[in-house]
Amino acid sequence: MTDVKPAKSEQTRTLILETALRLFQERGYDKTTMRGIAKEAGVSVGNAYYYFESKEHLVQGFYDRIAAEHQAAVRPVLDAETDLQKRLAGVLTAWLDIAAPYHEFAAQFFKNAADPESPLSPFSAESEHAREQAIAVHREVLGGSKAKVPEELREILPELMWLSQMGLVLYWVFDRSEGSERTRRLAERGAALTTRGVTLARFRVLRPLVHEVHELFTDFLPGMAQAASARKR
Amino acid sequence: MTDVKPAKSEQTRTLILETALRLFQERGYDKTTMRGIAKEAGVSVGNAYYYFESKEHLVQGFYDRIAAEHQAAVRPVLDAETDLQKRLAGVLTAWLDIAAPYHEFAAQFFKNAADPESPLSPFSAESEHAREQAIAVHREVLGGSKAKVPEELREILPELMWLSQMGLVLYWVFDRSEGSERTRRLAERGAALTTRGVTLARFRVLRPLVHEVHELFTDFLPGMAQAASARKR
Repeated sequence: MTDVKPAKSEQTRTLILETALRLFQERGYDKTTMRGIAKEAGVSVGNAYYYFESKEHLVQGFYDRIAAEHQAAVRPVLDAETDLQKRLAGVLTAWLDIAAPYHEFAAQFFKNAADPESPLSPFSAESEHAREQAIAVHREVLGGSKAKVPEELREILPELMWLSQMGLVLYWVFDRSEGSERTRRLAERGAALTTRGVTLARFRVLRPLVHEVHELFTDFLPGMAQAASARKR
Repeated sequence: MTDVKPAKSEQTRTLILETALRLFQERGYDKTTMRGIAKEAGVSVGNAYYYFESKEHLVQGFYDRIAAEHQAAVRPVLDAETDLQKRLAGVLTAWLDIAAPYHEFAAQFFKNAADPESPLSPFSAESEHAREQAIAVHREVLGGSKAKVPEELREILPELMWLSQMGLVLYWVFDRSEGSERTRRLAERGAALTTRGVTLARFRVLRPLVHEVHELFTDFLPGMAQAASARKR
């Protein structure tokens, strides 16, 4: 019996999350309420709140799911390619594929997610789990490539690569081109530019700049500091 | 008589703009209507619409005013300093001083301004005038400094410096620290980092990267392309 209960609660959690995501898409994020989600999922409102404290927490569950799906989707390119630019372009494109069904409502909750102090922000304490998963992907993009990276930059470059992905996501949120075609081109161009940046970061004269850029983000974005301290633990 | 009419219309325009700014601050941006602005300014609704097509156009008037005030406020530091870092820090800090009274309602209309296709976006065609004024300040920051800048980068570095200022503005919008103290520290740190970047951009090996970063923004942000073509005219 002890095995069954966690499994059942996991099922209920998944049911609530999937119902919420469907309603976010059908009705829009702002118009979807916890009450409406509970009703549609066939659970009590109290039960819905037991699993997710708020609509924001449902979005965290959504972030975690996107991150998990992304980790699975990048296997083919990360297992086959050693060229940094191709690895990075593949990883960014895979993210756009996975996020495509949610494009419409991403624009809606963007106004919350853009606030670094909102739990919906990719830089918030609440987003740490999804963020760590996403940074881990970039660590593998770099580590599994044939690019030569000095030891002192191996930990911080993946965080900067993830930051540039957040820039891509920001662009995608507002991209109205068919199939987010403009963002896809930006992903390819960004991968080329990042690869050139990583190649140049080898030069000793540039390394202090890379450290300073990273320190700037760590000092001013709360989530980045947590990522840094988690690394040191 | 021909001299008087333009002056009167300029007065009416200023009156409407100032009333709007006051109401934006008192009532909030979303809750302020063109009708309410006209009433408070003592002009007809039709007259208000004659000067400003929409609330968005009032915000453009506001951007222009901020840009003009900023151009005046930076004179002391730009006339006295030749050190690039001090010039840049002074210019960024002056902007924060001027924008301070509007901090609260900046967060409100941010959700519109963040969309690059919105007329409120700093990258929109509608914002071109304010943007050109702001980029001109950065051109003077660089040109009047004793920093050695290769000819091929003299036109594009000020646009990249302005872009980094937009990053600072984004941070400021969500900064809840007393007197935007965190953003002020970020401005100082950002000025130091930008100065180091400009210094490094002299190295031949790095120049292609600077060009590519600039081209990326020009190709993917509509307003940047306009700035580039305006330069070539």
